[in-house]
Amino acid sequence: MRGAVIHAPGDVRLEDRPDPTVVESTDAVVRTVATCVCGSDLWRYRGIAQVPKPTPIGHEYVGVVEATGADVTTVKPGDFVVGGFLTSDNTCALCTAGAHANCLNGTGYDGCQAELIRVQNADGTLIATPAEPDKAMVPSLLALSDVMATGWHAAVCADVRPGSTVVVVGDGAVGLSGVLAASQLGAERVIAMSRHKDRQRIARDFGATDIVPERGDEGVERVKDLTGGLGADSVLECVGTHDSVVQALRSARPGGTVGWVGVPHVTDLPQEHMFWKNVGLRGGPAPVRAYLSDLLHRVWNGHIDPGRVFDLTLPLHQVGEGYAAMDERRAIKALLQP
Amino acid sequence: MRGAVIHAPGDVRLEDRPDPTVVESTDAVVRTVATCVCGSDLWRYRGIAQVPKPTPIGHEYVGVVEATGADVTTVKPGDFVVGGFLTSDNTCALCTAGAHANCLNGTGYDGCQAELIRVQNADGTLIATPAEPDKAMVPSLLALSDVMATGWHAAVCADVRPGSTVVVVGDGAVGLSGVLAASQLGAERVIAMSRHKDRQRIARDFGATDIVPERGDEGVERVKDLTGGLGADSVLECVGTHDSVVQALRSARPGGTVGWVGVPHVTDLPQEHMFWKNVGLRGGPAPVRAYLSDLLHRVWNGHIDPGRVFDLTLPLHQVGEGYAAMDERRAIKALLQP
Repeated sequence: MRGAVIHAPGDVRLEDRPDPTVVESTDAVVRTVATCVCGSDLWRYRGIAQVPKPTPIGHEYVGVVEATGADVTTVKPGDFVVGGFLTSDNTCALCTAGAHANCLNGTGYDGCQAELIRVQNADGTLIATPAEPDKAMVPSLLALSDVMATGWHAAVCADVRPGSTVVVVGDGAVGLSGVLAASQLGAERVIAMSRHKDRQRIARDFGATDIVPERGDEGVERVKDLTGGLGADSVLECVGTHDSVVQALRSARPGGTVGWVGVPHVTDLPQEHMFWKNVGLRGGPAPVRAYLSDLLHRVWNGHIDPGRVFDLTLPLHQVGEGYAAMDERRAIKALLQP
Repeated sequence: MRGAVIHAPGDVRLEDRPDPTVVESTDAVVRTVATCVCGSDLWRYRGIAQVPKPTPIGHEYVGVVEATGADVTTVKPGDFVVGGFLTSDNTCALCTAGAHANCLNGTGYDGCQAELIRVQNADGTLIATPAEPDKAMVPSLLALSDVMATGWHAAVCADVRPGSTVVVVGDGAVGLSGVLAASQLGAERVIAMSRHKDRQRIARDFGATDIVPERGDEGVERVKDLTGGLGADSVLECVGTHDSVVQALRSARPGGTVGWVGVPHVTDLPQEHMFWKNVGLRGGPAPVRAYLSDLLHRVWNGHIDPGRVFDLTLPLHQVGEGYAAMDERRAIKALLQP
């Protein structure tokens, strides 16, 4: 089968790789129907994170189960399935507490930008759709694999509630998903920080009530103007740079909470915007399985269409172009079809 | 009247000062019945925080209202009152959101280790007891002014719930109050980190189920041993040093939350124990008024006796000895009687 391998910054190639197989009795092998490129993949593509050796890449997928181990009971060959960007057993003490991203037996993948993938902990990771989905729904199901669940996690960590005022920092796929999550969780006001017309449009469609294109001091001032001088109850940090984390903390009102989900590249957390303002900071990698049933239900019933973040669809063999388009901000998020 | 003034590290004196008066129509003047020394006062006493000029000191008190401004409606002369360590109007947007410590019109005091004090925002700060309290109850009412409310805030910020496993870092008056708070909020397991026999005894009486005397790596290991290798759902950070904050973050399980209330003197927040572990950090100065009615009810009805943290009682003119005893750890907390 063919799968993407990153060799060095800027160099992702589709290559022949061995077909994955069921190794443990809790494994499944899934034939991907769609996969995609993640903003976090770009850290390596851009040379900010290291690529010590050629490495299979990708961690988002939907597909059809091809084979299962003897102990897999909840999905079977032929099922259309969605799984999160990390596997989880859904039974350990941490999964029971809802912290599936930190599952005691969790694993990553052997590269999901591929035709076939091995999914460990299949029962605790995969959920089958009620039936074969329409092709039009595939992007929204694929979004649940990471970005939509991650945006949801940001909103949950930021304590978004009915009536909340929310700021979303970042207009990438996760930020836009965060807008949708905040809106679904009942936020009354959702302020999306975005400078790009196409992304602003999606943000509006996802429930943003206000758009702030400014950044830095100016961005904070605009947020204050929109929130009676106070800042927002909840802020979703969906980028991960030092500046964006500072922006997020400064955009929260005293007593508010920042949910951070952008993989942080922060030199020093600015305590001066935290303790004395009683601003909390919570988040990390999303426990996808904790949210997956609920989110799948919302997609299946047409309440949300998070797949709109995919504005570029390519055949899998053009995976390199998918990376380039996202790196150059020509695309929000690239969907790859095997 | 006489009030304490800090002149320099190690130098706190009781001096004649002008009697405070009602300045604004929302002020009250309170004749203190008891006041005390706070761990946070020691930062200046120890020379860690600056003392640029002689400054009235102290921010905890209970007493009897002596005079009120024309617009004060909820307390009247003769009432026995408790107030928090910051004043709050209890009506602004932040107070309405429960963030009274960050009240838009909040103020501090002109030194509460004194015979008389001016309390601004009297209606939004003071609560009168249902009747004149017994003398034996005065220490517990005084504790509500800061340490008990601060321990409570730590527990609320750390998301303590019925059934939670909780670690409390710090066995000072705030840490012990945090143990009591966690217990009152329904924690099933409360692990108090303490090396002092007398403090361990109070912690046990306040609801601690386990005592860990070790610190640093050993302390973290002991907590892990007691929590199935995971760490605690909630951790209360009640010290504020770099080491104690690191200890607190490392003691939390993945997906858990640290409530921090010790005035932080932290060089760099250790993100490595936060994002990837999904460990949140929330807290700051306590919004005393948000909790005061509830806590007053618990004290008045004999459900809690937070005044047990006072293990030294001195006449106000020995205020210097109160500081020295706390500085040298001969006392947990010193109560001063005018």
